[in-house]
Amino acid sequence: MLGKVALEEAFALPRLHEKTRWWASLFAVNPDKHAAEMQDIADIRIKYMDKYGVGYTILSYTAPGVQDIWDPKEAQTLAVEINDYVAGAIKSHPDRFGAFATLSMHNPEEAAAELKRCVTQYGFKGALVNDTQRAGPDGDDMVFYDGPEWDVFWSTVTELDIPFYLHPRNPTGTMHDKLWAKREWLIGPPLSFAHGVSLHALGMVTNGVFDRHPKLQVVLGHLGEHIPFDMWRINHWFEDVKKPLGLSCKKTIREYFQQNLWITTSGHFSTTTLQFCMSEVGADRILFSIDYPFESFDDACVWYDGLQLNMVDKIKIGRDNAKKLFRLPDFKDSQS
Amino acid sequence: MLGKVALEEAFALPRLHEKTRWWASLFAVNPDKHAAEMQDIADIRIKYMDKYGVGYTILSYTAPGVQDIWDPKEAQTLAVEINDYVAGAIKSHPDRFGAFATLSMHNPEEAAAELKRCVTQYGFKGALVNDTQRAGPDGDDMVFYDGPEWDVFWSTVTELDIPFYLHPRNPTGTMHDKLWAKREWLIGPPLSFAHGVSLHALGMVTNGVFDRHPKLQVVLGHLGEHIPFDMWRINHWFEDVKKPLGLSCKKTIREYFQQNLWITTSGHFSTTTLQFCMSEVGADRILFSIDYPFESFDDACVWYDGLQLNMVDKIKIGRDNAKKLFRLPDFKDSQS
Amino acid sequence: MLGKVALEEAFALPRLHEKTRWWASLFAVNPDKHAAEMQDIADIRIKYMDKYGVGYTILSYTAPGVQDIWDPKEAQTLAVEINDYVAGAIKSHPDRFGAFATLSMHNPEEAAAELKRCVTQYGFKGALVNDTQRAGPDGDDMVFYDGPEWDVFWSTVTELDIPFYLHPRNPTGTMHDKLWAKREWLIGPPLSFAHGVSLHALGMVTNGVFDRHPKLQVVLGHLGEHIPFDMWRINHWFEDVKKPLGLSCKKTIREYFQQNLWITTSGHFSTTTLQFCMSEVGADRILFSIDYPFESFDDACVWYDGLQLNMVDKIKIGRDNAKKLFRLPDFKDSQS
Amino acid sequence: MLGKVALEEAFALPRLHEKTRWWASLFAVNPDKHAAEMQDIADIRIKYMDKYGVGYTILSYTAPGVQDIWDPKEAQTLAVEINDYVAGAIKSHPDRFGAFATLSMHNPEEAAAELKRCVTQYGFKGALVNDTQRAGPDGDDMVFYDGPEWDVFWSTVTELDIPFYLHPRNPTGTMHDKLWAKREWLIGPPLSFAHGVSLHALGMVTNGVFDRHPKLQVVLGHLGEHIPFDMWRINHWFEDVKKPLGLSCKKTIREYFQQNLWITTSGHFSTTTLQFCMSEVGADRILFSIDYPFESFDDACVWYDGLQLNMVDKIKIGRDNAKKLFRLPDFKDSQS
Repeated sequence: MLGKVALEEAFALPRLHEKTRWWASLFAVNPDKHAAEMQDIADIRIKYMDKYGVGYTILSYTAPGVQDIWDPKEAQTLAVEINDYVAGAIKSHPDRFGAFATLSMHNPEEAAAELKRCVTQYGFKGALVNDTQRAGPDGDDMVFYDGPEWDVFWSTVTELDIPFYLHPRNPTGTMHDKLWAKREWLIGPPLSFAHGVSLHALGMVTNGVFDRHPKLQVVLGHLGEHIPFDMWRINHWFEDVKKPLGLSCKKTIREYFQQNLWITTSGHFSTTTLQFCMSEVGADRILFSIDYPFESFDDACVWYDGLQLNMVDKIKIGRDNAKKLFRLPDFKDSQS
Repeated sequence: MLGKVALEEAFALPRLHEKTRWWASLFAVNPDKHAAEMQDIADIRIKYMDKYGVGYTILSYTAPGVQDIWDPKEAQTLAVEINDYVAGAIKSHPDRFGAFATLSMHNPEEAAAELKRCVTQYGFKGALVNDTQRAGPDGDDMVFYDGPEWDVFWSTVTELDIPFYLHPRNPTGTMHDKLWAKREWLIGPPLSFAHGVSLHALGMVTNGVFDRHPKLQVVLGHLGEHIPFDMWRINHWFEDVKKPLGLSCKKTIREYFQQNLWITTSGHFSTTTLQFCMSEVGADRILFSIDYPFESFDDACVWYDGLQLNMVDKIKIGRDNAKKLFRLPDFKDSQS
Repeated sequence: MLGKVALEEAFALPRLHEKTRWWASLFAVNPDKHAAEMQDIADIRIKYMDKYGVGYTILSYTAPGVQDIWDPKEAQTLAVEINDYVAGAIKSHPDRFGAFATLSMHNPEEAAAELKRCVTQYGFKGALVNDTQRAGPDGDDMVFYDGPEWDVFWSTVTELDIPFYLHPRNPTGTMHDKLWAKREWLIGPPLSFAHGVSLHALGMVTNGVFDRHPKLQVVLGHLGEHIPFDMWRINHWFEDVKKPLGLSCKKTIREYFQQNLWITTSGHFSTTTLQFCMSEVGADRILFSIDYPFESFDDACVWYDGLQLNMVDKIKIGRDNAKKLFRLPDFKDSQS
Repeated sequence: MLGKVALEEAFALPRLHEKTRWWASLFAVNPDKHAAEMQDIADIRIKYMDKYGVGYTILSYTAPGVQDIWDPKEAQTLAVEINDYVAGAIKSHPDRFGAFATLSMHNPEEAAAELKRCVTQYGFKGALVNDTQRAGPDGDDMVFYDGPEWDVFWSTVTELDIPFYLHPRNPTGTMHDKLWAKREWLIGPPLSFAHGVSLHALGMVTNGVFDRHPKLQVVLGHLGEHIPFDMWRINHWFEDVKKPLGLSCKKTIREYFQQNLWITTSGHFSTTTLQFCMSEVGADRILFSIDYPFESFDDACVWYDGLQLNMVDKIKIGRDNAKKLFRLPDFKDSQS
């Protein structure tokens, strides 16, 4: 279909070329191609978009990005640089590109302020954060955003009325050493990404973030980072066991997915899993995405365009849900 | 249906009553009932089995059990005691009960020897181990069984031609403190169990355990601890990225599920998820189970008996797959 | 859930009690109960509705009804009587009941005029017709509404902006004798109903009714009378073979289901089939219904309320799609 | 996958070339290609089979074939000619081709005798019949095989222990005139085929054929000719209503599908519908097929090979179920 919208689409700063190239060498079959695509904003990307029927892309800074910088000042400086850079780079393509704010997550007030600046000054469509913020003197600590100290941040997100994309990052520090070092092939998309984000997102649920901020909209990639698979099991244990024992969150997991959570198809082009998620999450809360350049336009779009799916949901997932959630402007084939 | 077989069904030693009761208080809505059911072998249990059409149960020692004891000698002594105890307790009910060996997993040879003793001396149907073995001077280390030092153990498992059930346990030590302490409601069935077992099982895949032991049969509970949800994504990353970069396991994830892995319905009585797993794993590799007394016979059996499912698969999942995999003797309604 | 809406719910004229009772004896296990429920409008019905969480019911005259009367005048007289009767009977319950117009389908203009009267005078929510109109001197002919002579009728339907429910009827005349007489147990819900309506509905598609009346909304019961099962196959043959050979309808079968067709759950309380239809038709075009008193509130509502389904779609299918499609007034639990 | 088996694959007698060509002009986009492929046995076909990984094909005479000949003698003569012809034509390719017997269905004894001849003399794998036999002085009658007069035939089928494929045919005579004449685009795969076969197959169920011949194995094409879609509804009405009222068949519809009925993918290359049928019918009773040359090897095989499906079921549906059901000899890639 034409006019698809893609939401988990990465870029990197050109000045960090060397680092991007080295990073790519860790997981990309063709690191040069990957690095080139990552540093490009509009040249390569628009060609792909036109070829594969993607009308609009919301860009975000590649993981782990700022979440890997444990010095708060350095992190903040980089975040501001990234936001200014991408705002400038997409300015001339308002009908093809939007951006998610990049945020240093060391300090809730600071993160809130930078998000506000990006949304009000630049018209960014939301924020995308790469799971926990690395912190502490040796970078061994991990900051989660599910405690009450982050309420000031979530209040700003809901006041700005923009969604927050909770993107994965690699495991770090002690946890990495204990669990993942000898199972390194499972780091990233095969397993660790979903472990990280599912813990963080469900931590937000059980620690009451969505109760305190009932209008908060959080987007999860990769068809929900395993959570939909256990919808029944989570619901059963929360409602039948944990709440009688003291879990205090107000709604059911199904209600949080009805009112606060969204999932995207990024990096998970499985017909079977998508249909499963249509049952457990619902087509109204599913958004097409690619995860470019980690994934290819070809894999994502040939799959989606060929999907045997009713047309109402196909158009919603492919385009209309995103148009509505992000209040997108007119873009290429946005009315087709 | 009558003659169902259940495979993830726990008991505890009566002499540890106090500990069982305390443990139950951490997660059971009615700890006294739970503790009583846990210590019972056949009295309460057979009543449930008869009422709900379960013909045969394979018993296993409750988690974390021996996997929580970091002193190797103490762990081994307890394992032997448990095996002797349950062998005696089920002796008079050969047509209703079998048992999984309980193993101390500090030392591969020792674990192999105890398993061999249980299978040859007592006719146990396999082994069930609660994820990693707690170890180290302070109990902070976790032993995984996916390294080459465990080949001697896996060789014994395949020579004995019996399945190995990889059951979850709670997170411990540093990992617990870092990740789960402030998200305690997610410990157990809602999330941490699947994190632990999926890492361990996929570690066995990527570290070549199934390549070195191609006849090894490993059973995962809870409809596969999230792994089936990502079958496409894991396959994509293993085949298209990780193998070109050096991942050396010989088969695809789909082939390991075809040849080495099984899943059970324990604690996951979701029609939607079961049907999804029928696509991704296949009815020939799915086994009914309850997870009693953590779950109730009523929840599990009323759901399964009422399932709108073709009868070939319903009988396979409910009974015949288990009969074949575990070479079960005649039992109540085993021919119905 | 509370506030469900039900759409394929039958009644009969009290003065035809004897006929209703005889008819019931042909297919009802308890004909007296069935006949009593059929003749009741609000007394028995509201009790069921309150007990099972149905907020609003749109009533329709039981099949074959007027479609079985081959004398045009008699048919028209009966239709008018039925419409006047039900309008009066529901008048005092505007927050619980609406009605579908009953129509004699011998003459398009006459049918259009009576429909218009019902909608404008009584506020009826649409029309429900029992498949083909029996006609001809011996009642052996069957009138379909898919030819151009019915354009005047469909124009009225779209001008009034109300949906048309195409309900089944039994096979009659020669066709009955040839095919069904020796397979009488297949008459009705097991097979013949779907044969009749699928032919009629797809005849409307291939004969261009929806092309000439692109705003026409037609509702099919029983999860679509088999058509969704063959969505791929129909689409393949229409697009790849029939259109190249001359089939002239303008859109694809998937587009007609996107823009013109709706399905209800009446008499088909299958979780598996509903989930399949969510893929092929989409939750936005599916409407809960019972088919009372042929089906019971208990079978329909216990099933639907217990469905493991995302809450967005559950509320849409159970209530909100119908509220929107029929522009329903406030009713019991309509906002819950 | 390699070594697939295909079961609903048509041929025609070369001497009837002109008729085949004319017939093709009614529904084929390229009638010359279609006619050439239809008359070919092994030349074109083996090229396709090799290219698309089909190891073995069971051939059958194209519809309506002998079922369209209402003169009993003429029909029998043609059937014998066809059987002798195809036996000769495949003789030199025992590792690639088998055949279904073509039968004149005017007389049960005669049909049984010809079937016996084909199976014992030629090693045919079963019979394939094109729905009802046209009969009567004007060809207006339709012979169904669900009455007791056909018991002698079904006894022979079960004694020979071979399956019977119930293939569709076009509607004829009065039924055609009444229902299909003005909806001609629905004749064939879009609708009429499934109407015919579903009535015939369910007629066999309700008229007790499978009760009197419990070992009888009947194969239905096109993923079951709509019947799986209504498994719940048929079961509900048979068990809850029709049997209390007198329907006398002994088992449930689900049991007949467990013990007597099979479905193939012929002409229905829908991932969604296949997965639905895996729930309602079960992968053990589903067989890959193409319906060549009405459908293309490319459509069927590219779809099947690309299916995201667990490998156990993929191999069973693609090859092993057919190997077992038809006791096939070794063929190309039959062990791969």
